[in-house]
Amino acid sequence: MTPISLGLVGLGTIARNQHLPALAATPALSLAAIASRNARLDDIAAFYDVAALLASDVRVDAVSLCTPPQGRFAQAQAALRAGKHVMLEKPPGASVSEVQALAQLARDRGVTLFATWHSREAAAVEQARTLLANATIQRVDIAWKEDVRHWHPGQEWIWEAGGLGVFDPAINALSILTRILPDPVHPTGAILEVPANKQAPIAAQMSMVTGAGAPVEAVFDWRQTGPQTWDIRVQSDLGEVVLQEGGARLVVAGVAQINASDAEYKRLYARFVDLIARGQSDVDLAPLQLVADAFLLGERRVVEAFVE
Amino acid sequence: MTPISLGLVGLGTIARNQHLPALAATPALSLAAIASRNARLDDIAAFYDVAALLASDVRVDAVSLCTPPQGRFAQAQAALRAGKHVMLEKPPGASVSEVQALAQLARDRGVTLFATWHSREAAAVEQARTLLANATIQRVDIAWKEDVRHWHPGQEWIWEAGGLGVFDPAINALSILTRILPDPVHPTGAILEVPANKQAPIAAQMSMVTGAGAPVEAVFDWRQTGPQTWDIRVQSDLGEVVLQEGGARLVVAGVAQINASDAEYKRLYARFVDLIARGQSDVDLAPLQLVADAFLLGERRVVEAFVE
Repeated sequence: MTPISLGLVGLGTIARNQHLPALAATPALSLAAIASRNARLDDIAAFYDVAALLASDVRVDAVSLCTPPQGRFAQAQAALRAGKHVMLEKPPGASVSEVQALAQLARDRGVTLFATWHSREAAAVEQARTLLANATIQRVDIAWKEDVRHWHPGQEWIWEAGGLGVFDPAINALSILTRILPDPVHPTGAILEVPANKQAPIAAQMSMVTGAGAPVEAVFDWRQTGPQTWDIRVQSDLGEVVLQEGGARLVVAGVAQINASDAEYKRLYARFVDLIARGQSDVDLAPLQLVADAFLLGERRVVEAFVE
Repeated sequence: MTPISLGLVGLGTIARNQHLPALAATPALSLAAIASRNARLDDIAAFYDVAALLASDVRVDAVSLCTPPQGRFAQAQAALRAGKHVMLEKPPGASVSEVQALAQLARDRGVTLFATWHSREAAAVEQARTLLANATIQRVDIAWKEDVRHWHPGQEWIWEAGGLGVFDPAINALSILTRILPDPVHPTGAILEVPANKQAPIAAQMSMVTGAGAPVEAVFDWRQTGPQTWDIRVQSDLGEVVLQEGGARLVVAGVAQINASDAEYKRLYARFVDLIARGQSDVDLAPLQLVADAFLLGERRVVEAFVE
């Protein structure tokens, strides 16, 4: 079968560390072009931006966007209008309504739009989902604590309006939460801790509740040095179900079930290929909706200025 | 026909000024009970809250909620679970996801949920919508400026987290905008001016764009004394279409079309009766989504403390 010809837009950390290796391991996709303002790869056609790529004679069937979310709408819109299938890094956009508009555009043009949530592809997430499908959830606690200096060095856009701050990693937890619980959740309150010199929060506490009334308490913090924590603990009638290491490790009632190696982006690209073959889109906005709602109803507290 | 028996929850300014007169003018609805912590009406059964009403032997078929949005989810959930039709004042909740959960619950229970946008019932809105249905929109400007001291005296909840601040009136403009434009809009940027002693903004500028690319610029301000401004100006291939006075007055290419008296809440209750008769719900979250997105991507600026 002829591989799907793909253009990669954005060539930053996430592209180099995740997208390029995953693409190299996906024979159904062929990397045909890069669009980046300040970087290029040997032997791959290079363009300044997606508009230049689309206007060129390098033919791509699909575009994968891993630029910062603030500018992604215009890029995705241009690609969809040109009839290309589009895959979006997380978060899928700077607002929920812009991604709803992209989903409508993809439907109108008959192409695939895939809003990815890479953490949902962590090894143990689907088993946790299956396990909890018929469980009675009593309580959920999320602790997502990491060192922003280690994970996001020099990424100024993440602190700006629309950059999400600590919700950039927190949305990974929320993407797992909304995948594994049998019931939708909604926030009832939030505290956003915003450094005096930034627009976006460096830490947050978020209280949510399931439709059935079980509390979901989340703590997100970007100031954690030393060991990093990415845990979701679910109390249920099956006992305690714990996802650790961002979904890679599953422990049920104290017994480890899965501790698998990372294949998140390979699975994302496999799913993109599958969606294109089926003529479908996958645009689940629940994680971004929870973040928007936390900003809407959250109380802001000014905390110590952050200096990288 | 036997009237639908209705319980009114909340007996503040909006209930007294709008809901009670509209109910009195709607023979298809019969006011059977009031739930309010600190107020009552002569000759109407009175309860402390919606739970007490639902637990009583006063039978209601429907409940209309006009309490502040922060506590409305639990009230609506209790009423829907009890099999009552529910009408929500604007904004329909403190978050988008909680109203999505209510809409799902209403579907599951087979009852009507009506998230109202009273400004959409202003006299000229439907004519503007019809007029613009096939127009090419070039640009939209919204100016929504009023005196918070006059319109919201003593309403502390409106300044708290989840209270929306100036977006409480601004969402009226956004509800009209999303009704009259043929195309969805999404925000591209926002500036939220927040008093140093408050959580919610006292003023905001919001830049949006239609799917077709036309700019929509909005200015919301709660500091306007003297004449009040509630205008939406649409530049189109039909000329300038202007909605004034919150949608009561329509001027097309300089010629006044409609300047009608207010019947917003009468029309809302008539529509609620109609939805119940048809077994339908009406939950359009676009206006609240735009506000949540403005909070998500907006830049915050601290301005002078507000003292009522």
